[in-house]
Amino acid sequence: MVQAFDDLMRFQRDTEALAQVAGRLGWDQETMMPRGAADQRSDESAAMESTLHQRRTDPRIAEWLSALDMGALDEVSQAQVGLIRRDFDRAAKIPADLATAIARTVSRGHVIWAEARADDDFASFAPILREILDLRQQEAAALAAGGDPYDALLDKYEPGAKAARLDEMFGALRPRLVALREAVLGQPELPGLTQSFDEQGQMKLARLLAKTFGYDFKRGRVDKAVHPFSSGSGDDVRITTRTVPLDPFNCLYSTVHEVGHATYEQNVDPVYRLTPIGQGASMGVHESQSRIYENQLGRSRAFTGWLYGQMRDTFGDFGIADEDTFYGAVNRVKNGYIRTEADELQYNLHVLLRFDLERALVSGDLPVADLESAWNDRFEADFGFGVDKASNGVLQDVHWSAGLFGYFPTYSLGNVYAGCLYKALRSAVPQLDDQLAKGDATQAVGWLRDSLQQHGSLRAPRELITQAAGEAPTEEPLLAYLEEKFSALYSL
Amino acid sequence: MVQAFDDLMRFQRDTEALAQVAGRLGWDQETMMPRGAADQRSDESAAMESTLHQRRTDPRIAEWLSALDMGALDEVSQAQVGLIRRDFDRAAKIPADLATAIARTVSRGHVIWAEARADDDFASFAPILREILDLRQQEAAALAAGGDPYDALLDKYEPGAKAARLDEMFGALRPRLVALREAVLGQPELPGLTQSFDEQGQMKLARLLAKTFGYDFKRGRVDKAVHPFSSGSGDDVRITTRTVPLDPFNCLYSTVHEVGHATYEQNVDPVYRLTPIGQGASMGVHESQSRIYENQLGRSRAFTGWLYGQMRDTFGDFGIADEDTFYGAVNRVKNGYIRTEADELQYNLHVLLRFDLERALVSGDLPVADLESAWNDRFEADFGFGVDKASNGVLQDVHWSAGLFGYFPTYSLGNVYAGCLYKALRSAVPQLDDQLAKGDATQAVGWLRDSLQQHGSLRAPRELITQAAGEAPTEEPLLAYLEEKFSALYSL
Repeated sequence: MVQAFDDLMRFQRDTEALAQVAGRLGWDQETMMPRGAADQRSDESAAMESTLHQRRTDPRIAEWLSALDMGALDEVSQAQVGLIRRDFDRAAKIPADLATAIARTVSRGHVIWAEARADDDFASFAPILREILDLRQQEAAALAAGGDPYDALLDKYEPGAKAARLDEMFGALRPRLVALREAVLGQPELPGLTQSFDEQGQMKLARLLAKTFGYDFKRGRVDKAVHPFSSGSGDDVRITTRTVPLDPFNCLYSTVHEVGHATYEQNVDPVYRLTPIGQGASMGVHESQSRIYENQLGRSRAFTGWLYGQMRDTFGDFGIADEDTFYGAVNRVKNGYIRTEADELQYNLHVLLRFDLERALVSGDLPVADLESAWNDRFEADFGFGVDKASNGVLQDVHWSAGLFGYFPTYSLGNVYAGCLYKALRSAVPQLDDQLAKGDATQAVGWLRDSLQQHGSLRAPRELITQAAGEAPTEEPLLAYLEEKFSALYSL
Repeated sequence: MVQAFDDLMRFQRDTEALAQVAGRLGWDQETMMPRGAADQRSDESAAMESTLHQRRTDPRIAEWLSALDMGALDEVSQAQVGLIRRDFDRAAKIPADLATAIARTVSRGHVIWAEARADDDFASFAPILREILDLRQQEAAALAAGGDPYDALLDKYEPGAKAARLDEMFGALRPRLVALREAVLGQPELPGLTQSFDEQGQMKLARLLAKTFGYDFKRGRVDKAVHPFSSGSGDDVRITTRTVPLDPFNCLYSTVHEVGHATYEQNVDPVYRLTPIGQGASMGVHESQSRIYENQLGRSRAFTGWLYGQMRDTFGDFGIADEDTFYGAVNRVKNGYIRTEADELQYNLHVLLRFDLERALVSGDLPVADLESAWNDRFEADFGFGVDKASNGVLQDVHWSAGLFGYFPTYSLGNVYAGCLYKALRSAVPQLDDQLAKGDATQAVGWLRDSLQQHGSLRAPRELITQAAGEAPTEEPLLAYLEEKFSALYSL
């Protein structure tokens, strides 16, 4: 029994280590890889994935699992075994042929999607999307065993989450966000930045922000890449950012966002390193960390007051007269088509749209042929203006071409979680604004580390948030926070 | 039969791809890895090595090999199978316990060696060296099956090489190198550099040199590291270099040396990518490429004339009056203890010393306890002055602490091969000096690519050199080249 547990954990440790290597290969591809190496890299990545897949479906895992007496294990060991069992059972339920077909189809899908987006031509993407959806529906049916197929897909990214509960949350979010958005956009525009900001200064400030939010540079590094991301767990967690001359907030807040993801990984208890619980609990919990760092803390009136001084020190007079105007520039609300460029107020409306559409796709209620018009109708209903082209609409995100149905809602769930955590943080740290106004985020990130991050995946996501926030998560704290913030900013 | 070959090659392809990933992990460790990630990285590397070891000893390989009809395969396929069989047979002859013991002991050995070197204390290194040697002797006995145990070790780095043949070559090299060295050092010193050279200029020239010698930046990249090295095969071959303010030649010629290794890998026929023959044929052949680029081409009177102009353009007047003086500064001969800092004339004397000593260690004729005094005696005999401390003598190289017995002679064998290839190249490209004097190495590296590099490991090293050089390799061309070059430089 003890032997089976030890053997299982030793085997799993090597799997986790190989997964870190595969992740680092992905980082390399986006940051360092010579561009002529793409074909060879695709063979190398495939060999790593194949090795990992073999290990994750190794029949010895079933033997070890069945030889275990769960009752004799302590809480941490039970959690470890629980996660291993969960992944193994999921993998075992998916026929090998189906897994291969999915891998092959999404690989083609990505190429076709990129071309279709460049051509603004949804019709040329629709056939492969239908194939991908069909395969994922088969997978969902195999996993759901009679339950809600969408839940089976969602569970991969957010263990234990249920679409019905998200429906409730998101159903309450949507009308109040639409109303708040309309009210805000009825007011005069807030001034924004108009100058150009040099790359060196942006990167200097990005590093300062990373340090301010607790990113450990001894166990990480910051590089430039086309898309900002965080990669790795434990002692090697790397982030990327980018610079846009006219929009330094892109660089700065992307960095803070990725630092939220990265410090979460860095702050997991080191005894869990290279084990199943040695990483973030779910996509939603991960997003709660990146968003609370970025928005509730990073875009707060208190913190932007300090950041204004730093920007003046770095760039001189950049045409913004005072802290209040700067706070407005950081948080101003503008019409836009693109989710990843959306402000804090409108972001979740973009996500909710995708959630409703992909549920209808997976259930079969919405045929792929009708997806573009369904997108455009919904967009106009929520945002009050029409989509001008497919690359600004249904083709803008990579997710569906990669078969990632069930992933989108974790973004908004993360924002809901961030709202709950922020409410609890404000109670726990009453002097929070005074500290942030001095550029001191130590207590804020310390509270997040102690209340949540250190536990890694020891607890299920919802339970983890409930314990950290002191109450079961609802959308109310997020809504109250957004309504208060934007009512004040726009004098509603 | 055909099925067995296809299955074998498909399996091998993934192994080669994973080996590339493991190599890139090593590159990352020396260039990009955050320093706090060292412990975790060691787990990650071990997991990769363990995966590779399992694949290389997978019992299915034996089944596929025995199902093959070699006679029905074409030349290339026979070579592929030959290399797979060779590696599999070697691995199969080494008991698993012994392989594990070696891995564990050399890992400890490295740490103890580094401390002993810092303390200049050979006695504290001797016990672990005895353990490592003992394990390698066991390995050699298992592999040799009655033959020369040293040959069995050598064969790993230089397939088909025999110590007896090296003895002949090196026996002829040594007295003439000792005599040439004494004659040169009896002459007045040539002037060297005395200024400081900024890092930016050194790196700019290093990149220019890499380009000049045909390095394909689209399939590689240059970074800084503590030790220069080349890493990877095929379409992702990366090199590192370093800068020393007072010694720009260190940066420039390290770069040309690594470019020799790297272009060899880049120039292998792309149809061999991720197969056993899709990489350099041996350590000795590899070194022949790095050395001919670095020395016969890069340190030639013709090429240094062009380089002098580039250095003037980059650094202005740096205290060297003309091309001839610059040629002397690049090639000047000075006393020194350290192999890796040795000039072209003395380098092989350092290697021959190690070859003779490690043969005596492996045969048992030289006890580890007597190694330091044997080293010091031999050094004084060849170099005419005594070793002052162990870090300048027996503890200077990492190789023995890593158990790499049989590796050293490939350095000098590579120089011998370079001498043969250079002789043939001069016949094939009569205008070589005119081209090099204009900074044009296109024909020279083109000849090396066509005659040798493109074939990868298709042929055995000695056969490959014989075909490219047009005659069986001997030490004579290298000696004639060195005697001519340094007699002229020092007016002997």
